Amino acid sequence: MTFRLQARIIAEFVGTAFLLAAVIGSGIMAERLSSGNMAIALLANTIATGAALVALILTFGGVSGAHFNPAVTIADAMERGRPWSEVPAYVAAQCAGAFAGATGAHIMFGLPFFSLSRHQRSGAPQVFSEFVATFGLLAVIWGCSRLRASSVPFAVGAYITAAYWFTSSTSFANPAVTLARSLSDTFAGIRPIDAPPFIAAQMGGAIAATLLFRWLVPSPREAAKAGSLS
Amino acid sequence: MTFRLQARIIAEFVGTAFLLAAVIGSGIMAERLSSGNMAIALLANTIATGAALVALILTFGGVSGAHFNPAVTIADAMERGRPWSEVPAYVAAQCAGAFAGATGAHIMFGLPFFSLSRHQRSGAPQVFSEFVATFGLLAVIWGCSRLRASSVPFAVGAYITAAYWFTSSTSFANPAVTLARSLSDTFAGIRPIDAPPFIAAQMGGAIAATLLFRWLVPSPREAAKAGSLS
Amino acid sequence: MTFRLQARIIAEFVGTAFLLAAVIGSGIMAERLSSGNMAIALLANTIATGAALVALILTFGGVSGAHFNPAVTIADAMERGRPWSEVPAYVAAQCAGAFAGATGAHIMFGLPFFSLSRHQRSGAPQVFSEFVATFGLLAVIWGCSRLRASSVPFAVGAYITAAYWFTSSTSFANPAVTLARSLSDTFAGIRPIDAPPFIAAQMGGAIAATLLFRWLVPSPREAAKAGSLS
Amino acid sequence: MTFRLQARIIAEFVGTAFLLAAVIGSGIMAERLSSGNMAIALLANTIATGAALVALILTFGGVSGAHFNPAVTIADAMERGRPWSEVPAYVAAQCAGAFAGATGAHIMFGLPFFSLSRHQRSGAPQVFSEFVATFGLLAVIWGCSRLRASSVPFAVGAYITAAYWFTSSTSFANPAVTLARSLSDTFAGIRPIDAPPFIAAQMGGAIAATLLFRWLVPSPREAAKAGSLS
Repeated sequence: MTFRLQARIIAEFVGTAFLLAAVIGSGIMAERLSSGNMAIALLANTIATGAALVALILTFGGVSGAHFNPAVTIADAMERGRPWSEVPAYVAAQCAGAFAGATGAHIMFGLPFFSLSRHQRSGAPQVFSEFVATFGLLAVIWGCSRLRASSVPFAVGAYITAAYWFTSSTSFANPAVTLARSLSDTFAGIRPIDAPPFIAAQMGGAIAATLLFRWLVPSPREAAKAGSLS
Repeated sequence: MTFRLQARIIAEFVGTAFLLAAVIGSGIMAERLSSGNMAIALLANTIATGAALVALILTFGGVSGAHFNPAVTIADAMERGRPWSEVPAYVAAQCAGAFAGATGAHIMFGLPFFSLSRHQRSGAPQVFSEFVATFGLLAVIWGCSRLRASSVPFAVGAYITAAYWFTSSTSFANPAVTLARSLSDTFAGIRPIDAPPFIAAQMGGAIAATLLFRWLVPSPREAAKAGSLS
Repeated sequence: MTFRLQARIIAEFVGTAFLLAAVIGSGIMAERLSSGNMAIALLANTIATGAALVALILTFGGVSGAHFNPAVTIADAMERGRPWSEVPAYVAAQCAGAFAGATGAHIMFGLPFFSLSRHQRSGAPQVFSEFVATFGLLAVIWGCSRLRASSVPFAVGAYITAAYWFTSSTSFANPAVTLARSLSDTFAGIRPIDAPPFIAAQMGGAIAATLLFRWLVPSPREAAKAGSLS
Repeated sequence: MTFRLQARIIAEFVGTAFLLAAVIGSGIMAERLSSGNMAIALLANTIATGAALVALILTFGGVSGAHFNPAVTIADAMERGRPWSEVPAYVAAQCAGAFAGATGAHIMFGLPFFSLSRHQRSGAPQVFSEFVATFGLLAVIWGCSRLRASSVPFAVGAYITAAYWFTSSTSFANPAVTLARSLSDTFAGIRPIDAPPFIAAQMGGAIAATLLFRWLVPSPREAAKAGSLS
């Protein structure tokens, strides 16, 4: 079942908006309630984000693929999962949805619509973390979608739950999410000046994982062409 | 397999009772044990509620649809999932079950059967939160039930787990739950005077999501009629 | 595929032993690490128990049914899921496994093999809690096993995760577990004198839920006989 | 679908690297944020590890079997799941991946590539814990893979989530993981001198569980040969 582009774009917009509302909103709630214990705050933020991903990918996966992430859309185009001509519309919808979701979270907690983040996230370890985080995310997506597609929502939710903790950057792993979080001066924010290196590392990780899995788990079409399975 | 209305009504009653017992009971336990750390209390309340939803929807979904929520039942009737003539019985069973579950939780913790809540939950951000929370809940239900129905229990449990944290109201998202929690002067309570705006916002969110998904993911019958899939 | 009784008995023994090791062992670890914050201790105990149930029911469900619980075995016999003649062997294996698991947990944490618990758990609210907890457990088992059997492990794990928090007794819901925990003077213990009322309430809840679901969701055989589905 | 050995070896390498990055990285993050509350730190470490296992086994299970663990590979060879001739390559890839993942975690958090752990983990209770932990892990793997293979990722993730808490050693249950953690002077570390008894106990537990399940749940081929199912 293939949906019209218009429906898929709306699905990407609404899904990314809810994803950002979940990331930023739960960060605000967690920081307000945790009395300064950052481990508890991040644990609540993690559980909310992982659970939101499961729910949103189950909800919108059948419509648009539930990318919610320009790095995923570009990687998908690299593998001919969808035509390059659709990429701009997808990416625009994801970015617009991300900003709408950030604003929505701010409204739900009585904050200004936007505010530049002052949360410093920089340095080689954090930038390397974003490379690793996005490499892993795309590995999970390619491995699962080619071999057991129905498990993608659970695998992605579980992966991000882990990656929030095992990277020093807390795994943004998503350029649209990074941009929107730069306009949120809250727990989940990132200084605008720190965003470009994060986004570059994310794209590098996404492309590296895509190339590895092109060889490791070829899509059925490629496998047939190359005779690469024994 | 369709069950008699009588069996479905009992399923809605028992399921909603257990849902409320879980929401209110776990709130009491969490507040008693958490030594004033509200983040830990809400985390325990969240995990108990999300897990209860998964278990209860798996248990009763095959019998009654496991709505446990008048907003869901009314949205289902809007989409002709069930006849309007059954709505009053469903809603009555849900409300009666909600009150029974609240009382059950109070008895299990040695409290009076009922007590008016003094927990203030008001203001535009919280009312807007209820609109968003219920919009998202119905989006999850429509997206999943039309495209991969077996995932509904997990998607709803995961969604509410996230929504407890990303809304400032902690996502009641259910008129029957709201009414019953107004009679519980505990962690999960809400002042009776704050209930009507919550319920209005919930109904608004439910209807908005239902109309969006009527266009975005038409039910198979509608899709065939309109030829809306490419 | 039906396994020999001998294999099923061993499966019940090993599974119940691991269940008790998980309940008691995680309680010891949680209390040691939590610096007196009982909410964090119970949260860790809850997550470990729920996760253990999922893993153990997935592992042994195909062999013995993964009851690990005399109340479940007796309810199953009531519904002719297995002959009454097998009940004594199942219950004996469950009780022996429960004691072995408790001992194993004590050894893993350097404690005496057994010690009488001094943890008071008594009073009408807690006894009523055990009735509710076991009623709910059997409701989950009957609803899921008759309508979507493959979801039982997840539904039971999720239910107990919730029930640890929404009952004042923390949901023992299992006579064999209750007996073995009376010999553990740790976080998860229960005074031996408090065990009999718990067990009586558990059996009452199990039988009540079984009778309700005999009417609500008849097993396919009963439904055919009675013509009870519309 | 069988993959070439080369692809399977790379899958074991990458998967084990991410597993170690998750275990060690989340331990570093948890200790840094938890203000000395070890229960919260272990809870975060547990959730990250369990979630990573679910994601990684879903991702790589279809390629290499997703062992990430020499004890599992050797047990699999015992049961003729794969030829003994492949065992050295698998084990080498797992150990190399484990060291790479540890280094990656250290880099992500700005630490030296390697440092000998000073975290004492010794004594009979902890060594016995490793026997129990690995016995249980292999029981879960054999029970699930022979009777409902698609549930292995969830069962293993859930089992380790529980076992982190119910054993006094926090369940390494994996010789490659044990070796790599001996070179990490962080929350998840183990003194090199404590590693050999852990590894011996792990192999003992793995072999004991494999022999039990050879009798309890014979593989289809063995069952046909022995006529062991009634």
